[in-house]
Amino acid sequence: VAGRVGGSVFLLTDYGLADEFAGVVRASVARHAPGVPIIDLTHGVTPFDVRAGALSLVRAVPHLGPGVVLAVVDPGVGTHRRAIAVSVTSTAASDGPQHFVGPDNGLLPWALDTIGGPARAVVITPRRTAASAQGSGATFDGRDLFAPVAARLWQGVPLTELGDEIDTAGLVRLPAPQVSTSPGVLEAEVLWVDRFGNVQLAAGSDDAAAAGLGAELDVVGAVGAVGAVTHRVRKVRAFGALEPGAIGLIVDANGRLALVCDRQSAATVLQVHPCDIVTLRTVASDRESS
Amino acid sequence: VAGRVGGSVFLLTDYGLADEFAGVVRASVARHAPGVPIIDLTHGVTPFDVRAGALSLVRAVPHLGPGVVLAVVDPGVGTHRRAIAVSVTSTAASDGPQHFVGPDNGLLPWALDTIGGPARAVVITPRRTAASAQGSGATFDGRDLFAPVAARLWQGVPLTELGDEIDTAGLVRLPAPQVSTSPGVLEAEVLWVDRFGNVQLAAGSDDAAAAGLGAELDVVGAVGAVGAVTHRVRKVRAFGALEPGAIGLIVDANGRLALVCDRQSAATVLQVHPCDIVTLRTVASDRESS
Amino acid sequence: VAGRVGGSVFLLTDYGLADEFAGVVRASVARHAPGVPIIDLTHGVTPFDVRAGALSLVRAVPHLGPGVVLAVVDPGVGTHRRAIAVSVTSTAASDGPQHFVGPDNGLLPWALDTIGGPARAVVITPRRTAASAQGSGATFDGRDLFAPVAARLWQGVPLTELGDEIDTAGLVRLPAPQVSTSPGVLEAEVLWVDRFGNVQLAAGSDDAAAAGLGAELDVVGAVGAVGAVTHRVRKVRAFGALEPGAIGLIVDANGRLALVCDRQSAATVLQVHPCDIVTLRTVASDRESS
Repeated sequence: VAGRVGGSVFLLTDYGLADEFAGVVRASVARHAPGVPIIDLTHGVTPFDVRAGALSLVRAVPHLGPGVVLAVVDPGVGTHRRAIAVSVTSTAASDGPQHFVGPDNGLLPWALDTIGGPARAVVITPRRTAASAQGSGATFDGRDLFAPVAARLWQGVPLTELGDEIDTAGLVRLPAPQVSTSPGVLEAEVLWVDRFGNVQLAAGSDDAAAAGLGAELDVVGAVGAVGAVTHRVRKVRAFGALEPGAIGLIVDANGRLALVCDRQSAATVLQVHPCDIVTLRTVASDRESS
Repeated sequence: VAGRVGGSVFLLTDYGLADEFAGVVRASVARHAPGVPIIDLTHGVTPFDVRAGALSLVRAVPHLGPGVVLAVVDPGVGTHRRAIAVSVTSTAASDGPQHFVGPDNGLLPWALDTIGGPARAVVITPRRTAASAQGSGATFDGRDLFAPVAARLWQGVPLTELGDEIDTAGLVRLPAPQVSTSPGVLEAEVLWVDRFGNVQLAAGSDDAAAAGLGAELDVVGAVGAVGAVTHRVRKVRAFGALEPGAIGLIVDANGRLALVCDRQSAATVLQVHPCDIVTLRTVASDRESS
Repeated sequence: VAGRVGGSVFLLTDYGLADEFAGVVRASVARHAPGVPIIDLTHGVTPFDVRAGALSLVRAVPHLGPGVVLAVVDPGVGTHRRAIAVSVTSTAASDGPQHFVGPDNGLLPWALDTIGGPARAVVITPRRTAASAQGSGATFDGRDLFAPVAARLWQGVPLTELGDEIDTAGLVRLPAPQVSTSPGVLEAEVLWVDRFGNVQLAAGSDDAAAAGLGAELDVVGAVGAVGAVTHRVRKVRAFGALEPGAIGLIVDANGRLALVCDRQSAATVLQVHPCDIVTLRTVASDRESS
């Protein structure tokens, strides 16, 4: 088809894989855009956890090729939240996704920011479909609304044909993750605990530099928790550099600071979870321990 | 290839995703039909639960584009149950899948019924393959039998070349889910509890109308269970209309009645499971509570 | 593209599906090789379990069509283990995958052996990428190293352009699974417990013949375990031939001996796990029980 955006349609949802939800969305995209490559980013976002979905998108988006991102994590399904389609600036879109489709609940903007920010946005106008015409039932927005729109965008339909344009400054945004620094001390929110138990923090190496963190650190998990235990941590470049049970601080593959163990869950050792605040503190006599 | 059915091959199994079962079936389809788009509906059907697989297919099939459905949930693998391929009527197939492949154990007919019913069926004749020739081992029907047949159907091989035709009236069918109504009362089987804890019932809004259900209802889960608790339920159009912990009755995205909570598992609140019977009863003084 | 290897890129990892790891690798492959069919074999390998991943590949590879296998199970990520790309002999590659990409830690050689063994191998030379240039962070080898290399191989780039050639005899290999026989007795390592609880052994029917196993057997799980219980087992051809709770010995769909129950987990009944040694012993009075 001339005018195709091309590339792939990328899916990220909290639908899980036990039911056929994700499968029906895949099928709906393929039905409306025959020949489209469909790539699952993940359907394993914790149900209703918009923040976790937004952070997963942030990590994925810089590594995607061209195409359309369809993301749904939607506690307000069937209520008044808006369904949106968003384009990024053409410069940013030269090698990555050009369009995003999903609920206007904070899921998309952080990822859009990583590739130049939203350029234009529309509120999706639902189309009269056979399904909606016959049924008095609830809609399954992933299947009935977002998948057809993602398919049409992939086929080259202009964004503005999909609904009324809105100000991108008005998109719903989540509160920014917390990071604060003082001399020798870094406090940062836990963004993510991955399958392997690695603990990704909201801070990057620039934050570590701003705090003047030394090579040898104490870490305290879950600020304010009764009985929070202090662990010794040292900066490492690779997991294998850590002795069993030891905790390392690395700059991870997303450019974030992360607390890790070698073949063991740092999250379990530290007893921390997403949204906890952890404190990293330079050990006073840094020379003794390095 | 001229004569291709086109569309996709859709997969639904109870193989799970932890092992390579589903992956090998995907690869087998692609090997026998290079270029075929493969769409996983789900591989998360509870092992051996033919009814759950059949219901998942029922929900998915009306939303699929053209192609071939390959479904395997098969407690009788390696025994005498028949392997079948089924076509739907050409009218019904104009926009949806034209062919279905799977075991003759009740998995397919309900889904076929949703798109016009089975038109023709064959018992699949196993082909002598290199694998079957060399090995004395068990066959993996998904890999060795159903995937090659789905691939050939997708390529346009006529159904009747795959085996001997049988009477579609003789296909194995599961017992129909239970629904019964009396004035003000609806009893219905639980079809499905989804990832979010929504409780889909066998009844639709026509059944609710037949029972003359009011807007305010009592629901009793698991008929006959000792200590079954009565909950108050009200008809709603959207999840967000429910206060925390409240149970709503909606017409869901499959046109079925479903008991739901807002961001909480209605199944947990009600303590019900698939195959349980729940009773919905109009509250006598309906005017007081609405 | 002329010179394309064609076929698919097959993925097998321990990344799981809850995070976006697998999704980003899929996207990276598609970005570097637009149009490539991507087939997930599984992402459900137990984290860091190289042996389990290697065995899953062994089971899958004989059933794949042409293409490139990308496998990552990598406890030593970020350490000194080598990243390799391997070709199989052109004869063996006529119908199956021609190339394999992954860590040199034992993950690949067993699968290569099933299709003729490794013909040539290179140590992958990392390319300066935008990501590696800007970031001081850890690399995500699946995304940054293996996916681009698999994509280039699929596009027809010669193996030797990807790095320096090494002797295939020097590839890291895992210790072979244990099997031993004596008259009437077979001891074999458990290779795999699948989703359904079937217990695949390292032995095949040739081993059973070498031991002269009868039709009626005793099986003892977990040699050396305190309180190991003896169960009666009989050779069967199909699961359905077993009465409830009974344990059967079959030749499974991979040509291995497996201990199975009918719609029940044999692993639970026998209390065995991968790497355990089980003993099969012909019952003395074989004639009485058959």
